[in-house]
Amino acid sequence: TSNASDQEIREKLDDYHENDIAEALENLGEVERKRLYHIIGIEKVSEIFTFLDDVGMYLEELGPQKAAGIIENMDADDAVDALDEVDSVMRDQLIQYMTKEAKEDIELIRSYDENEIGSQMTTNYIEIGRDLSIRQAMKTLIEQAEENDNISTIYVKDDSDKFYGAIDLKDLICARDYVELESLISTSYPYVRAHEKIDDCIERLKDYAEDSIPVLDDADTLLGVITSQNIVEVVDDEMGEDYAKLAGLTAEEDLNETLLESMKKRLPWLVALLALGMFVSSVVGMFESVVSQIALIVSFQSLILDMAGNVGTQSLAVTIRVLMDERLTMKDKVELVWKEIRVGFTNGFILGILSFLCVGVYIYLLKGKTPIYAFSISGCVAVALIVAMTISSFVGTIIPMFFHKIKIDPAVASGPLITTVNDLVAVITYYGVAWLLLINVLQLT
Amino acid sequence: TSNASDQEIREKLDDYHENDIAEALENLGEVERKRLYHIIGIEKVSEIFTFLDDVGMYLEELGPQKAAGIIENMDADDAVDALDEVDSVMRDQLIQYMTKEAKEDIELIRSYDENEIGSQMTTNYIEIGRDLSIRQAMKTLIEQAEENDNISTIYVKDDSDKFYGAIDLKDLICARDYVELESLISTSYPYVRAHEKIDDCIERLKDYAEDSIPVLDDADTLLGVITSQNIVEVVDDEMGEDYAKLAGLTAEEDLNETLLESMKKRLPWLVALLALGMFVSSVVGMFESVVSQIALIVSFQSLILDMAGNVGTQSLAVTIRVLMDERLTMKDKVELVWKEIRVGFTNGFILGILSFLCVGVYIYLLKGKTPIYAFSISGCVAVALIVAMTISSFVGTIIPMFFHKIKIDPAVASGPLITTVNDLVAVITYYGVAWLLLINVLQLT
Repeated sequence: TSNASDQEIREKLDDYHENDIAEALENLGEVERKRLYHIIGIEKVSEIFTFLDDVGMYLEELGPQKAAGIIENMDADDAVDALDEVDSVMRDQLIQYMTKEAKEDIELIRSYDENEIGSQMTTNYIEIGRDLSIRQAMKTLIEQAEENDNISTIYVKDDSDKFYGAIDLKDLICARDYVELESLISTSYPYVRAHEKIDDCIERLKDYAEDSIPVLDDADTLLGVITSQNIVEVVDDEMGEDYAKLAGLTAEEDLNETLLESMKKRLPWLVALLALGMFVSSVVGMFESVVSQIALIVSFQSLILDMAGNVGTQSLAVTIRVLMDERLTMKDKVELVWKEIRVGFTNGFILGILSFLCVGVYIYLLKGKTPIYAFSISGCVAVALIVAMTISSFVGTIIPMFFHKIKIDPAVASGPLITTVNDLVAVITYYGVAWLLLINVLQLT
Repeated sequence: TSNASDQEIREKLDDYHENDIAEALENLGEVERKRLYHIIGIEKVSEIFTFLDDVGMYLEELGPQKAAGIIENMDADDAVDALDEVDSVMRDQLIQYMTKEAKEDIELIRSYDENEIGSQMTTNYIEIGRDLSIRQAMKTLIEQAEENDNISTIYVKDDSDKFYGAIDLKDLICARDYVELESLISTSYPYVRAHEKIDDCIERLKDYAEDSIPVLDDADTLLGVITSQNIVEVVDDEMGEDYAKLAGLTAEEDLNETLLESMKKRLPWLVALLALGMFVSSVVGMFESVVSQIALIVSFQSLILDMAGNVGTQSLAVTIRVLMDERLTMKDKVELVWKEIRVGFTNGFILGILSFLCVGVYIYLLKGKTPIYAFSISGCVAVALIVAMTISSFVGTIIPMFFHKIKIDPAVASGPLITTVNDLVAVITYYGVAWLLLINVLQLT
């Protein structure tokens, strides 16, 4: 590119998406990058920087004053994200260099907890008074559009600066001049409160399928908006978190984390699971005498525990997703539990029959035992499977519901408890049936 | 509402979001609903119907002719979704009643496989020629906006009807009349191909963070667009599927599925896991003599297997999420494997020490054994934990990478294989160490 004139480069880059330029930037050297910034101007650079993966590195390369200028030109929510990528010393320097207005927007967003929807909003929106004519409204829109590019919904405030309603840009563009602005305003437009928990409003935000939803404070003043890009990010984050929690991580991890950070996210669950596992072990220990009499039955312990665990995880995953729907009635919940029990029992019955046959044949042929002996043991396995799978489905449904009820995130807390309860149920059923049937009734020792 | 005049009802409802009206509709009786449809007109009814959860029921209530009119007025992608909600007989009837144009749009979207991005696009977009003036472009936009409400990006075609570029509506609105339209067009605007797999382009779609991205056929003709609402849906679906697969379901389930449907989604994995579990059982069976000599060690089998399983799932979940990033290099992958091994070993070491102490004290105090005997067994547990957790982390990383490499969805295939390999590693390590140390070296039997 070094032979092209600045003018040519600028025109060429104007045709490309900022995300593509951001990717290309990573392949340039520092000198080339700085020349590029100079050519394309600070506003375009700001946009490009919102698409960089390691924006911190590129900001540090520029020094605090220039970097502050770039962040200042970003949407406030992107600016907050960018500030999170630099160290705290640099962050304080950057904030000092910014204009009062940019600083205030950033402080506002940073004032919300990361679980609150206010932390995800952008202050880049168009707001007009309700007393304008169509022509005046269009003129105000064009003026504000210089600074704010989320123009597809125009927000209207009343005389006391409270949120009054919203206008679809399409309606404004298509409206005849003689139409009253009032007739275009949806006064019962959906909104969220800045302090609402993301978990509580994410389903609603998705349902409305709007380009932007207003965020109000408790006095009904418009603070910012959630755009559909924000919703994509929030959905992605929330689902990623749920996914991570289902796998026993306290939070989602990425490639760049240090060993220590990864350990911190994983160790809490592992320690909890170890403690619970020891409790299960002590229960298994109570069946030591059964085991010492018929050592062969130990072979199938892992089979039954694994299957109970698998069924419990299936029920857990289904239940957590169903619980996300806020409109769930008590009747829905009872039906879900009952359905899970039936699914668990039916699947357990099918697998029980399968394992009765397979395990029996295996013991008879490969362990050289009598058919009675072989099919007595495989019978114990089958009964334990059916009971354990049915109860696991029940436990996998009722435990997340319980945590949901007492307002604890079910995706986090349910896993270890379900594993433990299921292990206990499976172990007690299996060795209990074996002790009763094999030792007391059939006296196979 | 029955005392209000039609005019009053219409004006009132105009202020509400269609999603809110859709929710209210569910609480009305059939007669009231039909009166409402009549008052608010077919276009608004069509919009409201895109927000209904059980749209099939409401369509059937209206009869095929009226229902076809409603579906016809929806965006083509919403129409496809609505048609999926009625039975196939009614669907054919509905399609017959529709105009040729609506039918063609629906057929186009339905022609793509559900894994292809074309199946998710909408044909609701604005397209203009490249030779227009700013004023002509604005006029064309207003004409087309009647029918198409995704106006924030305006697509431009060249003289041979091929996709040429895109204009940001904001730029068009703010442009002076004397400016050339050409200068507003981004000619290197991002796009996707209709036959691209959703998995392959979803990350790109998210990264561009645009209100709409064009979908082209192989001859560069614009077929439709992916709006940010489409992206929210796709992200939600894809993550939901991954989440379900991690939990051993073949697809995501919802509350309304029948017992048989749920069983079909769960049984395949369970049968596969049962078969693999039996293989593990036969390996455990080889250690029958070890078990019969020291029955106490069986107590801790579940502990070690559970911990190996937990660690493997953690590594699996992290790896699957990392693999979604298309820009991953070989070096990144090797680093990830190496990091996972270190995390597994370090966590294993910490838990190993913990269990050496706890298990030892437990056996010494509660089982009344000598300290040597107690800490020999707890030593076996500790060694097995460290080895099993390290190898599980490795296996939990390398297996999804392998499936990813050979183009099999790693979220589906990895789980059972990892569980099996981890169980085998854990069992062989544990009983192997026990046999070597307890029986052969210390002769504790």
